Amino acid sequence: MSLESFFDPKSVAIVGASRQKGKVGYEILTNMVASGYEGKIFPVNRSADTVEGLKCYPDLKSIGETPDLALVIVPARFVLGVIEECAEIGTKSVVIITAGFKEIGEEGKKLEEEIIRVARRAGIRIIGPNCLGVVVTATKLNASFGGDLPAVGGTGYLSQSGAMLAAILDTAKANGIGFSSLFSIGNKADVDELDLVQALASDPNTKVIAGYLESITDGNEFVREAERISHDKPILLMKSGGTAAGAKAASSHTGSLAGSEVAYECMFARAGIIRCDSITQQFDFAQAFANQPLPKGANVVVLTNAGGAGIMAADAIERQGLTFAKLSEKTIEQLAANLPAAANLHNPVDVLGDALADRYEFALDVLLDDPGVDSVLVLLTPQAMTEAQGTAEAIARTTQAKPDKPVMACFMGASKVEEGIGVLREAKIPQYDSPEGAVTTIRAMTDYVRWRNQPKRVVKLFPVNRRKVESIIERHLRKNMREIGEAESKEILEAYGFATPKGSIATTADQAANIADQLGYPVVLKIWSPDILHKSDVGGVKVGLKSAQQVRDAFDLMMYRVPKKMPNAHILGVLVQEMCASGREVILGMHRDPHFGPLMMFGMGGVMVEVLKDVAFYLAPLTGDEAKQMLMNTKTYRILQGVRGQEGVDIEAIAEGLQRLSQLVTEFPQIQEMDINPFVVGLPGTTPIAVDARISVEK
Amino acid sequence: MSLESFFDPKSVAIVGASRQKGKVGYEILTNMVASGYEGKIFPVNRSADTVEGLKCYPDLKSIGETPDLALVIVPARFVLGVIEECAEIGTKSVVIITAGFKEIGEEGKKLEEEIIRVARRAGIRIIGPNCLGVVVTATKLNASFGGDLPAVGGTGYLSQSGAMLAAILDTAKANGIGFSSLFSIGNKADVDELDLVQALASDPNTKVIAGYLESITDGNEFVREAERISHDKPILLMKSGGTAAGAKAASSHTGSLAGSEVAYECMFARAGIIRCDSITQQFDFAQAFANQPLPKGANVVVLTNAGGAGIMAADAIERQGLTFAKLSEKTIEQLAANLPAAANLHNPVDVLGDALADRYEFALDVLLDDPGVDSVLVLLTPQAMTEAQGTAEAIARTTQAKPDKPVMACFMGASKVEEGIGVLREAKIPQYDSPEGAVTTIRAMTDYVRWRNQPKRVVKLFPVNRRKVESIIERHLRKNMREIGEAESKEILEAYGFATPKGSIATTADQAANIADQLGYPVVLKIWSPDILHKSDVGGVKVGLKSAQQVRDAFDLMMYRVPKKMPNAHILGVLVQEMCASGREVILGMHRDPHFGPLMMFGMGGVMVEVLKDVAFYLAPLTGDEAKQMLMNTKTYRILQGVRGQEGVDIEAIAEGLQRLSQLVTEFPQIQEMDINPFVVGLPGTTPIAVDARISVEK
Repeated sequence: MSLESFFDPKSVAIVGASRQKGKVGYEILTNMVASGYEGKIFPVNRSADTVEGLKCYPDLKSIGETPDLALVIVPARFVLGVIEECAEIGTKSVVIITAGFKEIGEEGKKLEEEIIRVARRAGIRIIGPNCLGVVVTATKLNASFGGDLPAVGGTGYLSQSGAMLAAILDTAKANGIGFSSLFSIGNKADVDELDLVQALASDPNTKVIAGYLESITDGNEFVREAERISHDKPILLMKSGGTAAGAKAASSHTGSLAGSEVAYECMFARAGIIRCDSITQQFDFAQAFANQPLPKGANVVVLTNAGGAGIMAADAIERQGLTFAKLSEKTIEQLAANLPAAANLHNPVDVLGDALADRYEFALDVLLDDPGVDSVLVLLTPQAMTEAQGTAEAIARTTQAKPDKPVMACFMGASKVEEGIGVLREAKIPQYDSPEGAVTTIRAMTDYVRWRNQPKRVVKLFPVNRRKVESIIERHLRKNMREIGEAESKEILEAYGFATPKGSIATTADQAANIADQLGYPVVLKIWSPDILHKSDVGGVKVGLKSAQQVRDAFDLMMYRVPKKMPNAHILGVLVQEMCASGREVILGMHRDPHFGPLMMFGMGGVMVEVLKDVAFYLAPLTGDEAKQMLMNTKTYRILQGVRGQEGVDIEAIAEGLQRLSQLVTEFPQIQEMDINPFVVGLPGTTPIAVDARISVEK
Repeated sequence: MSLESFFDPKSVAIVGASRQKGKVGYEILTNMVASGYEGKIFPVNRSADTVEGLKCYPDLKSIGETPDLALVIVPARFVLGVIEECAEIGTKSVVIITAGFKEIGEEGKKLEEEIIRVARRAGIRIIGPNCLGVVVTATKLNASFGGDLPAVGGTGYLSQSGAMLAAILDTAKANGIGFSSLFSIGNKADVDELDLVQALASDPNTKVIAGYLESITDGNEFVREAERISHDKPILLMKSGGTAAGAKAASSHTGSLAGSEVAYECMFARAGIIRCDSITQQFDFAQAFANQPLPKGANVVVLTNAGGAGIMAADAIERQGLTFAKLSEKTIEQLAANLPAAANLHNPVDVLGDALADRYEFALDVLLDDPGVDSVLVLLTPQAMTEAQGTAEAIARTTQAKPDKPVMACFMGASKVEEGIGVLREAKIPQYDSPEGAVTTIRAMTDYVRWRNQPKRVVKLFPVNRRKVESIIERHLRKNMREIGEAESKEILEAYGFATPKGSIATTADQAANIADQLGYPVVLKIWSPDILHKSDVGGVKVGLKSAQQVRDAFDLMMYRVPKKMPNAHILGVLVQEMCASGREVILGMHRDPHFGPLMMFGMGGVMVEVLKDVAFYLAPLTGDEAKQMLMNTKTYRILQGVRGQEGVDIEAIAEGLQRLSQLVTEFPQIQEMDINPFVVGLPGTTPIAVDARISVEK
């Protein structure tokens, strides 16, 4: 059902409107009136005839027509009755401001569920309960107690915290920052973050979607939709706190390395969502995304009237991994022709402390024409002759004439640049307190452009033996076994196209020696028992055996010692396996996040993963590019390419392994966690070997 | 000479005072008058009788008494004359505002040098030229054209950029931030950053020294003094831009890894200087350092009226590496007794959205008593019932009664919390726009406390053979040789107590085999020639030779092949050397920074240094603790301790090696760069071996 009536209701009932100052029912009514809302307002209050000069109705039915939107402010115990009344008269959109539901415990939760049941039956959409309300600037709808109607702007906001929203509204007002709309989503009993992101995506007044979230209701669906929407409208989110999943004990390597935040980071990366660390940063980003064109690339030029400020901006550009634009010969000649001799004609372009507006205007105009410049940061410090206002006007004029590249301003100071900043705001030129804030914003825009320009994601499907895996997993689940043993893990790997070490089970020492002779030396022996998971802990693994005699000795010793340590284990024999050719050991893994599904991991093996935690995560299913990107995201990627005279390994083969694993865990949601460790990869062209795997399943 | 007259002059001459609005000479005069300065003001201007109602003098001599301070605003070509006049009448303190000196080129530089010559002879101290002036709030001295006199506060400021200072003054004014004094140091022709840091150190009105610097004149002296001063007064610096040294080509490992910023980072770490990335951050830090007690430890508690804000603060605490304070049983009981049932009694303590001032006051009071709490961050979001002002007053009362722990505030929003913020400012409680800003400040304070609590630095001096090294270096310098060859590098290492591999020079294959027999196998052969620096590039190194026959073969092959590749090299023979016992290879190095002297480096060997650049730097001379801290500062330190079943290596032995190297390069400033690579270190108790060294010297 559409949420349109929350954006543009023709009439609004305020159930619980009050004439008593300080009450929420009064605040909302007066906010509605003061904002200049042009639809009809119906105050509903059993014990008043008029409120603020408006006729008051004892209940919804008495209004005699159907309000598009009902705001509910009555005490929690009366809310269900109001919703039933809405159902009766046909009001389909309701904002429940009232608190005292799920957030106070079991009783409140039941009441909330009952309300939602009634609403669903009647086709009513509900925002809240326990929220601050709804604000839409285009329709002058201030159905909230968050403060005055803010300025009109391109940012649509949703917040899971009413308190944060109030702070945001108040800060925005002081800084002249505008919004298309703001939604306090409270307990998200019905309308949740996804509904609102979708609604804002189709709202023509919203250019940027921003929000503050503490949790996401349906992770998978949210990723899918956010990824689609991000291509058109940037999504800027503050996300606080870890997920409950972080606390869940994890038995695999991948699980223990995937902290609670990793899943969110992966989700944001996949969906192109821009993460903000604070309200200030979100405002910084929003004003640029809403009002400026996107930069074509990472080349930034700085225009300043003070050397020191220019250097600070240059430092920030380097720290943020952006490129310090190299100006063309032509640009430098043009600048030289009109700037004073002492001016710096190279980036940062310094028009000197005595620069008036005209010098800024000239230089900005020239810089915008340079094909090597993707964005411009204009710095101004208030010096004796500085014309803050005039310079702001000059910037506005120039960017209107040449609107293709983003231009940011950082007018430093306060009272001396106040009027200039006012002009910048009017002209929709983002203004920052510090060069750092402006540069961080350019970085966010550049990252977003890079994400948007990625080729379309195509996930390759390998031909596999799915039936085989299905039967193994089903057998385990029937027997209530969570861990899949070595032999069957190997079968699963082979079914999905992984090469595994050759070998067979021996039940006598001579048989072991025979198998070893056939495999060729050296070989490995491993005790074979469904009851022994940690083989090496009980002396059940022996590597590097180089002759038939060594194999016989190792076999007998193992059969003598292991039963002593685990007298109840059912021992089926000993696995005689080839030793893998030398190569680099890496780890391929998966941890299933309760919100976002399979989280793929790539890790450098051995010391790198233990000491450096040198791993990279990405959400499944993986494309080939994403698999390769995971390798590149590790700190020690260069080791795979070959360093210090060592040859590089087959990077494509690792990427293919990750894609195959991704396909396996996507096709089998029963697999909860999985590590292939080690995955031994050799020179390009050789076949990598999945030596060992750990797979745990759940119904 | 003391700079006292810059802080507290009894009389001030303004040479170049003007009656023409907009001129600097007018601005400064009116600023001096408007600020309420209580000493005498003598405007000097040849062509006026009075300026702004003050009697005007044609020149300094005509005043008839000696002004303590002279401000000079006349055009550059007249400045020398003014200084000569100052010398004549005995004025010892001068601020030259005028620009047009060193910063405009050779001619200006000469003029500036001439002025300084005259001043030095007469015992005159000069601030500037090319500066904004001096502001001292205690004496109401506003000898600047930077703006109005700011509020009184505990921060003393020095800036190398006048433009930045103007922006700082303007921003401070808007935020009610106070200063003890501000100095614009311009070209630093005489008084430099060190003079002013020292002056502010002894200024009783200055509690915190803050500054913006682009360069440091005397690096060594600055470190020494800053380290001394930091123990009493925190120093907060913004430092922009890299040093010219960064561009200098470096031939050693250490040199190429030590970027231009590394030396500054090391200097800041040694001297306890707190680095700030932006004006905002510097203000954030300064208000806390100037007005709050230092925290005893890293345990932070958050007090909030909104869950979301609390979570954001918790996230920031984790990101900044601080500790989320665990509250005592007693605290929780006390909170439980007086807070509503729905309140969160654990950190972050949530007093709920309807909290009035009394609830904040109660909770803050209880939290300050908890011995597990080192600092408190109070968050407030403007909700319907929130009393921003009352809460600020409550915080002020509580912290006055319990002043031992730092308390920070973050009142979110703008107009709704404005009055509350006013009260906080009045009460000297730092207020931040975002939880992030407050938490970053607590982190800076915690780091500073940790630095200050370090035991006194004691540099151990090892008994060494200094004479030996002196003669080797002198011989090289006499011959104009910059690189010291392998044999003599080894002698230098041995003279400073390093063990080196055993071995001798052979001139025949048989002799080589004899030496090898005596050393025991395996051995290494290395070509021996003063002309060959990169031995392995010409086939001049052969490792792992296991028998006399292998040694003979390798010797002959080397003597045949190397002369073909380098026909002009004078070959003295072949070095036969023992192979080192297995151990971990690390690098000990030094790069001499032109400003701050020897920069010590420790790096993990092999792949770690190549791929991860896993190195740590510190300024020499090193204490034992600092040497160990360097090891701990590498990302892969755990490898030295032993991982994955491998035993750890002798960490003390590496630290001793670093200290010995530190002593060597401190005692011989001729050594420009030095690497000991590899330095092979084995199990604890074994002697590490300095296998190879690269030493370059300069006069």
